[in-house]
Amino acid sequence: MSVPAPNSRQDGRAVDELRPITITRGWSRQAEGSALIEFGDTRVLCTASFTEGVPRWLKGEGTGWVTAEYAMLPRATSERNQRESIKGKIGGRTHEISRLIGRSLRAVIDLDALGENTIVLDCDVLDADGGTRTAAITGAYVALAEAVGWAQRQGILRKDATVLKDSVAAVSVGIIDGTPMLDLPYVEDVKAETDMNVVVTGSGTFVEVQGTAEGAPFDRAELDALLDLALLGTTELARIQAQTLAAHAAGADA
Amino acid sequence: MSVPAPNSRQDGRAVDELRPITITRGWSRQAEGSALIEFGDTRVLCTASFTEGVPRWLKGEGTGWVTAEYAMLPRATSERNQRESIKGKIGGRTHEISRLIGRSLRAVIDLDALGENTIVLDCDVLDADGGTRTAAITGAYVALAEAVGWAQRQGILRKDATVLKDSVAAVSVGIIDGTPMLDLPYVEDVKAETDMNVVVTGSGTFVEVQGTAEGAPFDRAELDALLDLALLGTTELARIQAQTLAAHAAGADA
Amino acid sequence: MSVPAPNSRQDGRAVDELRPITITRGWSRQAEGSALIEFGDTRVLCTASFTEGVPRWLKGEGTGWVTAEYAMLPRATSERNQRESIKGKIGGRTHEISRLIGRSLRAVIDLDALGENTIVLDCDVLDADGGTRTAAITGAYVALAEAVGWAQRQGILRKDATVLKDSVAAVSVGIIDGTPMLDLPYVEDVKAETDMNVVVTGSGTFVEVQGTAEGAPFDRAELDALLDLALLGTTELARIQAQTLAAHAAGADA
Amino acid sequence: MSVPAPNSRQDGRAVDELRPITITRGWSRQAEGSALIEFGDTRVLCTASFTEGVPRWLKGEGTGWVTAEYAMLPRATSERNQRESIKGKIGGRTHEISRLIGRSLRAVIDLDALGENTIVLDCDVLDADGGTRTAAITGAYVALAEAVGWAQRQGILRKDATVLKDSVAAVSVGIIDGTPMLDLPYVEDVKAETDMNVVVTGSGTFVEVQGTAEGAPFDRAELDALLDLALLGTTELARIQAQTLAAHAAGADA
Amino acid sequence: MSVPAPNSRQDGRAVDELRPITITRGWSRQAEGSALIEFGDTRVLCTASFTEGVPRWLKGEGTGWVTAEYAMLPRATSERNQRESIKGKIGGRTHEISRLIGRSLRAVIDLDALGENTIVLDCDVLDADGGTRTAAITGAYVALAEAVGWAQRQGILRKDATVLKDSVAAVSVGIIDGTPMLDLPYVEDVKAETDMNVVVTGSGTFVEVQGTAEGAPFDRAELDALLDLALLGTTELARIQAQTLAAHAAGADA
Amino acid sequence: MSVPAPNSRQDGRAVDELRPITITRGWSRQAEGSALIEFGDTRVLCTASFTEGVPRWLKGEGTGWVTAEYAMLPRATSERNQRESIKGKIGGRTHEISRLIGRSLRAVIDLDALGENTIVLDCDVLDADGGTRTAAITGAYVALAEAVGWAQRQGILRKDATVLKDSVAAVSVGIIDGTPMLDLPYVEDVKAETDMNVVVTGSGTFVEVQGTAEGAPFDRAELDALLDLALLGTTELARIQAQTLAAHAAGADA
Repeated sequence: MSVPAPNSRQDGRAVDELRPITITRGWSRQAEGSALIEFGDTRVLCTASFTEGVPRWLKGEGTGWVTAEYAMLPRATSERNQRESIKGKIGGRTHEISRLIGRSLRAVIDLDALGENTIVLDCDVLDADGGTRTAAITGAYVALAEAVGWAQRQGILRKDATVLKDSVAAVSVGIIDGTPMLDLPYVEDVKAETDMNVVVTGSGTFVEVQGTAEGAPFDRAELDALLDLALLGTTELARIQAQTLAAHAAGADA
Repeated sequence: MSVPAPNSRQDGRAVDELRPITITRGWSRQAEGSALIEFGDTRVLCTASFTEGVPRWLKGEGTGWVTAEYAMLPRATSERNQRESIKGKIGGRTHEISRLIGRSLRAVIDLDALGENTIVLDCDVLDADGGTRTAAITGAYVALAEAVGWAQRQGILRKDATVLKDSVAAVSVGIIDGTPMLDLPYVEDVKAETDMNVVVTGSGTFVEVQGTAEGAPFDRAELDALLDLALLGTTELARIQAQTLAAHAAGADA
Repeated sequence: MSVPAPNSRQDGRAVDELRPITITRGWSRQAEGSALIEFGDTRVLCTASFTEGVPRWLKGEGTGWVTAEYAMLPRATSERNQRESIKGKIGGRTHEISRLIGRSLRAVIDLDALGENTIVLDCDVLDADGGTRTAAITGAYVALAEAVGWAQRQGILRKDATVLKDSVAAVSVGIIDGTPMLDLPYVEDVKAETDMNVVVTGSGTFVEVQGTAEGAPFDRAELDALLDLALLGTTELARIQAQTLAAHAAGADA
Repeated sequence: MSVPAPNSRQDGRAVDELRPITITRGWSRQAEGSALIEFGDTRVLCTASFTEGVPRWLKGEGTGWVTAEYAMLPRATSERNQRESIKGKIGGRTHEISRLIGRSLRAVIDLDALGENTIVLDCDVLDADGGTRTAAITGAYVALAEAVGWAQRQGILRKDATVLKDSVAAVSVGIIDGTPMLDLPYVEDVKAETDMNVVVTGSGTFVEVQGTAEGAPFDRAELDALLDLALLGTTELARIQAQTLAAHAAGADA
Repeated sequence: MSVPAPNSRQDGRAVDELRPITITRGWSRQAEGSALIEFGDTRVLCTASFTEGVPRWLKGEGTGWVTAEYAMLPRATSERNQRESIKGKIGGRTHEISRLIGRSLRAVIDLDALGENTIVLDCDVLDADGGTRTAAITGAYVALAEAVGWAQRQGILRKDATVLKDSVAAVSVGIIDGTPMLDLPYVEDVKAETDMNVVVTGSGTFVEVQGTAEGAPFDRAELDALLDLALLGTTELARIQAQTLAAHAAGADA
Repeated sequence: MSVPAPNSRQDGRAVDELRPITITRGWSRQAEGSALIEFGDTRVLCTASFTEGVPRWLKGEGTGWVTAEYAMLPRATSERNQRESIKGKIGGRTHEISRLIGRSLRAVIDLDALGENTIVLDCDVLDADGGTRTAAITGAYVALAEAVGWAQRQGILRKDATVLKDSVAAVSVGIIDGTPMLDLPYVEDVKAETDMNVVVTGSGTFVEVQGTAEGAPFDRAELDALLDLALLGTTELARIQAQTLAAHAAGADA
C-alpha cells in the first residue's frame, strides 16, 4: 500500500480529508425538522416528519418508530434517470439505502422515550457526487434532532427525556490504486477497488460496517486501514453536527 | 364584486400584486439548464435535460420533442404525503400538471429547429405554498432557455436558429369572497370560489386557460376580470424571466 | 377571422351547429341511472351507481360524494388501443377526464342534500369520434338525475329536497383554419389550432373553461368568440337534457 | 334426476330452451368486425381488430395469430365492481375467460391461411346476467368471421382461401335441484350444483368442456345429460350465427 | 383410434399406466401439513398453512375457508422463466391453476366443520415435466389432510368431526396420434391433440373435467375414452394417498 | 465478553462451530448447475441457468454477466408470508440479498473468460432457519461451478480457461449476550445484539463485510472477534465446497 502525497487527489484533498461539509438547518419551511447537507457537490435535503401514532404492528406497545425514505431527483446525476414513480417500482438500491438510514437512526434513539409517535426521515438527493447515502445519514440525524427538539418544545415529548442516546454520522472510504482514501466523490468511487460505508456514533462505536470488494477482494490489513480512516471522518462529522445543533439551540433560546 | 383595499390580503399584498418572485439559475450542478424558482414560499426546482434522439414515435421526422414531469417532495406540504414511487402509481393530479407544463413549453419552442433532440423538464416542488404548477411553468421556461443556449454553445443546435419563438409564464388567479385576486398562496387557494390557471406568452397571447368553479359557477364578467388580472401577472413574470436570462447571457459573455 | 359559409364543414353542418344528439335513458339494465349518449358518431355509456355510505375521509360529515370514472373500450377508436387494465396503470388523459367529469357534476349537486351517500358515474366510450369528454359530462348528468330520482322514489332521499341545484352540459369548440367552430368531430379536432372544452350550467354560468393552444397561441378576441359558440351549444344541450328527463318523468308517473 | 315440467323455470323457459338470442352485426363503427350479442339480458360487445404483423415470437413463421380479451364494465352487474385498470391488475377470472375465448376461436381458424396477420377479439360485457363467457365466444365468432371477410374484400387475404374451417359457439349448462338445464341466467347460475361451459364447433365436435362441481361432485350420468343439453344449445346457436352471417353476406353482395 | 402396444410410449409405459408416484409427507419443517409429490420427474412441494380466522367477507358466518396458490420456480423448466414477482404480476395460467386447486380441495372439505379457520395450500413446482397442476392437487390433498389432523390433535378442531368428506386426486389424459393416454409427461403433452385434466373424488365422482382441443376438436367417443382412462388413474392415486396417510397415522400413534 | 462453555448453545454446538452442512449437487433436473444446500434446518435450492448472450448494456463488450435472484417460499418460515408475486412488488430485503449474492459471485468469476454469456443464479429458500443469505451464497457458488463445468464440457467455454479465479462462501456471526458466535440459527439471530454476514474467498480474503448493530453499537474489539469467527467458518465451508466439487468431478470422469 503506497501512501501518496497528501494533496495527490484530483480535488487537492489529502487522503484523510473530508470534502467541505455544510449543514443548513431549517431549509424546509414545513417539516418539524430539516437539514440541507452538502458533502462537496453532493447535496441532500433531509426532512423529519413527526406524527402522533405508530404503524399498526406497533400499536399498544408504548414505543415509537423511526423510518426513512431515500430518493434521488431524476437529474441529480450527470445523466437523467427515470423516476421510480414512473417505473412504478422502487429499485433495489433505493430500498437498500432507505433501510440503512432507518437502522442507523434507530440505533441512537430511545424508541420508548419517543412514546407512540413516528418520525419519518425523507432524504432526497438534489445533487449527487458520491457519498449520497452517508450524507443522508449525517443530515438525517440533524433533522431528527430538530424534530425531537420541536416535539419537546411542543410538550408532546417530556422536555427532560433523553430521547437521543447519542449522535450518528456516516462516511464512505475506499481503496483507490492501493491507497485508502476518505470520503469519495463520484470520480473516485467508480475507480475504487474496495468501497466501504461506515456508520459511527458520536462516542465512536460502530452501527454499520458495509465493505464491498468491487474489484479484488481485500485483506484484513486493508480493512483495518479503512476503518481507521472512517473513524477519523465520522469524528469530524460528529463535531460539525454538534456545532450546528448547538448554534441552533442558542438561537432557540434567544 | 366589491374591491377590497389594496392591502387587505393576509400577507399585505394588493389584490393585483404578485408574491416576491426569485429565479436562481444554474442551481443544479449537472443539468444542461436549471432554475430554482420561488413564488413567495413556494419553491420549485426545474431542470432541463437535453438528450440527442427522440422517442420512437418521432424517429425520422426531423423534429424534436419537449416533455415535462412534475412531482412533489413528500414533505413539501404541511402534512407529509406518501411518495408516488412507494404507491407504485402516479396520481391524476401529477399527470395533469405534467401534461400542462409540457404543452405550455411546446407552445413556444420550434420543434423543427430543435432537430431530433429531446428536452425533458423536471419540476420538483421542494416547498408548496400554492401556485406550484404556475411556478413550475415559469421556472421551466428559464431552464429550457438555458438548455437551448447550452446546445447552441455546444454546436448541437445552430447558433443563429430561433429555437424559442417566445417566452411563456403562468400565474394563478381566483375569486375569494367575491374579489378577484392574483397569485394565490395556499391559504387563499383553499378559500377560492373560482380558481384559474392562465399560461401566457411573452407577447401576451394565451397558451392555456383553465378555470374551475370550486364553489358557485362563475359568470362572464368574473371570467373577464380574472383574465385581466392574469395578464397583469404574466407580463411582470415575463419581465423577470427576460431580466434573469439577460443577466446570465451577460455573464456567459464574460 | 373569416367566416365560412354555414354549410362548409365536412359533415355539412354550420359552424355553430351541434352534431345530431341522442340520449337513450335506462340503457343499462342494472344501474340506478344510465344514459347512452350520442354526439354524432361518438357514443358514451354513462351509468350512475348509488351506494349508501361515503369514502372514509368524509365519514361523519353528514354530506355525500359524487365521483366519476372515464374509460374507452379498446376499439372505440380507428386503431385499437391497449387496455389500461393490461398496462396496469391509468394514463394521464384518463385521469384528467375522470377528474373533470367529477368536478362538473359536483358543481350542480347539493352534497349536503345527498346525505351520506355516494354516486359513482362510469362513462365508458363505446365509439369515439371527438368530444368524448363533453358527451360524457352531458350524458352523466342525465344518469345522475335518474339516480337521484331513483333514490327519492326509494325514500333514501327526501322527495321534496332539491338535490340537483341546476343541470350541467359540456361542449367542445375550436378554431380551424382561423374559424371558430362548435362541437368538433375527430377529423376537425386534429386540425384545430385551439381547442376548448366548456362546461356550463343550465342557467348559463361556467363550471369549467379549458382552452388549449394546440398550434399558435390565441388572443382575447378568439377566446371570446369560442365562449360565445360554446354557450350556444350548451344551451341547446340543456334543452335536450331537460326534454329527455321530462319525458321520463311523465313515463314514471304513468 | 327428476324432470320438471318444461315451463318450470323462473323465466318460463323449458329446461332445454335457450334464452332469446340476438346478434347485431356491425354495432361498432370502427372495428373490422363487430357484433353485439344478447343471451336474454346478458349483452356483450365483441369487436375484431385486424392488424398486419404478428407478435414477436411468431415472426417469420408464415402463420397468423388470434387472441382475445374479455372484460366487464363496472356496472354490468347488480353491484358495481371496481375497474381492473384502477386496481392495476387483471383478476384470475378475467384471465381465465380471455384465454378460453382465444383458444376457442383458434380451434376453428386456419392460422396458416391467415398469413402473418393478427386478429384481436375484444369482448366487453355491457350487461351481465349469467353466461357472459359463452355469449362472448358465440359473438366473437361472428366478429371474427366479419373481420376475415373484410380482409378478403380488402385483398389482404386470398378471397378463395378457407380461413375459417368451421364455426364455433358456446353455452352453459348446469344442474339445479337435480335437474340439468340449458343456458343459465344469473339467478340459476348461483344455485347450480354443477356448472359446465361447453364450446362446440358447427359440425358438433368439442373444443372445450369445462365442468365444475360447485356443490356435490357429479357422476357420469349427470355429465352425459349435461353434454346432451349443451349440444342441443350449440346446434341452435350455430344456426343463428350462420343465418346472421348469411344475411350480411347477402347485404354485402348488394 | 388405434391402440398401440402397451409399451409403446417413450418411457416404456402402457397407455393406461401412471408414471412412478412418490409422496413424501412432512417434507417442510414448518408447515402444519406438507407433501413433496413426484409424478415421474415432476416434483411439487405442497404445504398447508393453518391459521385461525377467515377472510373479511366470511367473518361471522361460522364457516372456514380453503384456498391455494400455485407457482413455479424459475428453473423448474428446461429454459428459465422470469419470476412473476419480478414481472410484478401474476400470469393468467398461474391464476387459472391456483383457482382450480382451491376449488378441487373445497369440494371435499366440510367448511362448516372447519369453523372460522383458514387453510392455505401453497403448491410450488420444483421440477416441471408435465402434469404439474394434477400433481399439485393430488399432493395438496395430502398436505390438507395432514393439517386437518394437526388441528384435531391440537384441539382446534373436534377430534370426532368428519372435516374431510372424501379424498381428491387429479390426473391428465390426452390423445396423441389418435391414442388416448394417461398421465402425460411434457414430451407427450406438447404433442397431444386433446388435453384433459380430470379431478375425481376417492369415491369416483367428478369435481372438475377440463378438456381442451389443442389441435382438432374431439368427439363424444374420444371424450368417453379419456374419462375412462382418467378414472383408472385417479383410482390408483386415491389408493396411494390413502396408503401414505395411513402409514403416517400409524406413525403418529407410535 | 464472557466465553460460555463450548456446548452452551441451545443446539449443543460450540460457539465456533458450524451447523451440519450438506450440499446435494444436481438436485434440479433441468438446470445447467444446481445444489440443494442445508445449514442445519435452513434449506436453499440454488440453480444456475447458463444462457448465451448478455444484457443489452453489455453487448459487444466481449465480457459475460452473472446475476442472482433470491426468494423465499411462502411457508419457508414459521408463519406464512404473502408471495411477492401476489403483492406485485419485490421487498427491500429480497432486493438487498439478491444484489449481495450477485456481487459475491462476480468477485470470483473472470467475466472476460465467460465470454458473452450470462449465468443467472436462483436461490429459493425452501426452509428458513436463519442464515439463508449465507447459505445461498455458499450453495450458489457450487451451482455456478457446475454450470461453468457444463459449459466447458459443451465446448461453449474453453476447457483450459480459468473461469473461476477462486471459490466463495459466506457465514453469519453475531454477538449474543456478549458472546460472539458462529452461524446463527433463527432462535439466536433474533437475540443477537450485533449481526454480521461475511463473504470470504477460498484464499481467505474478504468480498463483503456487513455488520449491523441490532441493539447496542459494537466496538473495534467485538468487530475483530466476529471477523475471526467468520474466517474460521468460511474456511470450513470452502473445504466442504471443494470436496463436493471434487467428488462430482471424479464422478464426471467415470
